[in-house]
Amino acid sequence: MPELRQDAVTGRSVVVATERAMRPSDLSKVRSAEVAGPEECPFCPGNERMTPHELFALRPDGSAPDGPGWLVRVVPNKFPAFKHCEVVAGSHSLFKRCAAEGTHEVIVHSPDHCRHLAEMSVGDAGKVMEVYRERYRVNEMDPEVDYIHLILNHGAEAGASLEHPHTQLFGVSLVPPLMELELRGSFDYREKTGGCVFCDLISRERDSGERVIADAGGFIAITPFASRFPFEVWIIPDSHEPSFGGMSDSQIEGFAGAVRDILRKLNLKFNNPPLNYYIHSAPCDGGDYGYYHWHLECFPRVSTPGAFEWGTGMMINVITPEHAAGFLRS
Amino acid sequence: MPELRQDAVTGRSVVVATERAMRPSDLSKVRSAEVAGPEECPFCPGNERMTPHELFALRPDGSAPDGPGWLVRVVPNKFPAFKHCEVVAGSHSLFKRCAAEGTHEVIVHSPDHCRHLAEMSVGDAGKVMEVYRERYRVNEMDPEVDYIHLILNHGAEAGASLEHPHTQLFGVSLVPPLMELELRGSFDYREKTGGCVFCDLISRERDSGERVIADAGGFIAITPFASRFPFEVWIIPDSHEPSFGGMSDSQIEGFAGAVRDILRKLNLKFNNPPLNYYIHSAPCDGGDYGYYHWHLECFPRVSTPGAFEWGTGMMINVITPEHAAGFLRS
Repeated sequence: MPELRQDAVTGRSVVVATERAMRPSDLSKVRSAEVAGPEECPFCPGNERMTPHELFALRPDGSAPDGPGWLVRVVPNKFPAFKHCEVVAGSHSLFKRCAAEGTHEVIVHSPDHCRHLAEMSVGDAGKVMEVYRERYRVNEMDPEVDYIHLILNHGAEAGASLEHPHTQLFGVSLVPPLMELELRGSFDYREKTGGCVFCDLISRERDSGERVIADAGGFIAITPFASRFPFEVWIIPDSHEPSFGGMSDSQIEGFAGAVRDILRKLNLKFNNPPLNYYIHSAPCDGGDYGYYHWHLECFPRVSTPGAFEWGTGMMINVITPEHAAGFLRS
Repeated sequence: MPELRQDAVTGRSVVVATERAMRPSDLSKVRSAEVAGPEECPFCPGNERMTPHELFALRPDGSAPDGPGWLVRVVPNKFPAFKHCEVVAGSHSLFKRCAAEGTHEVIVHSPDHCRHLAEMSVGDAGKVMEVYRERYRVNEMDPEVDYIHLILNHGAEAGASLEHPHTQLFGVSLVPPLMELELRGSFDYREKTGGCVFCDLISRERDSGERVIADAGGFIAITPFASRFPFEVWIIPDSHEPSFGGMSDSQIEGFAGAVRDILRKLNLKFNNPPLNYYIHSAPCDGGDYGYYHWHLECFPRVSTPGAFEWGTGMMINVITPEHAAGFLRS
């Protein structure tokens, strides 16, 4: 059973999920991608029996679950970092632990083992985003889930363990620390100014233009002023909406186009780099987060944080965001 | 000039240090180590002119600065992330920035291009630790320096850009966020219990033994209960002392032995893995940190944090610390 452990000094939580693990002697595997050809890939059509039973799929041909015929397919993660569980582990004041309660799903982008989102048509990428929203909406109804984290790990150097393009959805029973920080900042800004910090950022960024990469279809792509990573990009809807689940039908295509285009630019400039993105969205714990503004944060893995970054919690970025935006626009 | 930028939403600070950079088109270089043979290595004897003038060196033969004859040598970082500067950059409420004020030094461990700390005698490793303490003490006298961060990046995959074994010392004009968190936790624990959280942890860990790897010479090595990384190790002095600069002469050998032995174990188990360590120590900003307890935190880079970790601020660890300790003891 995956568990949440809390550090006695800092209070920070760590997920210990040995179901995801191999024995220590196998750990060298973690460093190289488990590249599986289509025959052995659990996400390829024909191999549906290799995954747990599907939770959802787009099947325009009306085909039966757990067989071929799907366009986008959702299954529970076979090695979950969070799951629903009854047992609660024992605690001591210096060694606090509890079950890592929640859900962990995989959204397979398409039947094609090699088709990166960057290479999809906007229509096909839009189908993936529709499924993101569908699973977001289902999971936010789960009373044990307080926050939903949608992520892409692309490439072994970005933490992907399987090559076939897929997104992971984590439904977790707490609001993660970085979201707490963003929520507090957004709340304080609203208290102080009456406005939304993201809406005001969009307006300022449009005025200067120096960190804008793209601005179309209701979404703006910028390199944030305090970018942690070289070529970090945020994609923000220009209409105020706290939750990803609140994205309207008419916004889906604009969002898919914005994401697809940024991934395509990064691919062109860095030759298919390992990269990550995640969506930050209001918690679904019943609170009022009207002041928050959902968005996506993306970064190619072109630099390696070392002991300065891991020991201080501060990043060193060797490229200015203004330079990065100019490079990605060109 | 390196600058500190503050994110408008979270308040987090990022160092933008383009002096460390290459043009974006050169960024692919960042991903592979700049492995330089001894002829081209700025840290090898005979190449002293390739670095800025030395700040300090152990020269038992009395040889002149900036030439061969040294055992351990300290120079300013040629591409500093922090430096003393007059100019303060302009700010806007959404785009706060200031100079990244401070110092950034390099401690070259030995004249030998290939001699990892793991392979040194305890006596030679002790000389390196003596120089750590010497530079720590010099930098803490600097009125612009509030916190000193000593780090090791070993291997390109751990963020090292030069192969010749070296340590970096950052003297920074703020207390980093992760230290703030540790200080607050340690302070709260003292308020609540009257004791030191690290002293109490040592006592508990000795009782159970399940996370203890080594315990000798005044230093205990444990895998922390809420380890963020597989095989994360903390080395903690068993006598209470807030500051690394307060380490006594008689402790140096014990510390050097503990560090050398842990690196050697990791080397044996993982075949010279990329790894990082850093020292956490009380700030030198004039505050009273009697409740804090300095220590070293180390981890091999055998796993790759992805978008879950970067987006939530929570780590997923696939190996229990109890398992890791057993494996490293064996």
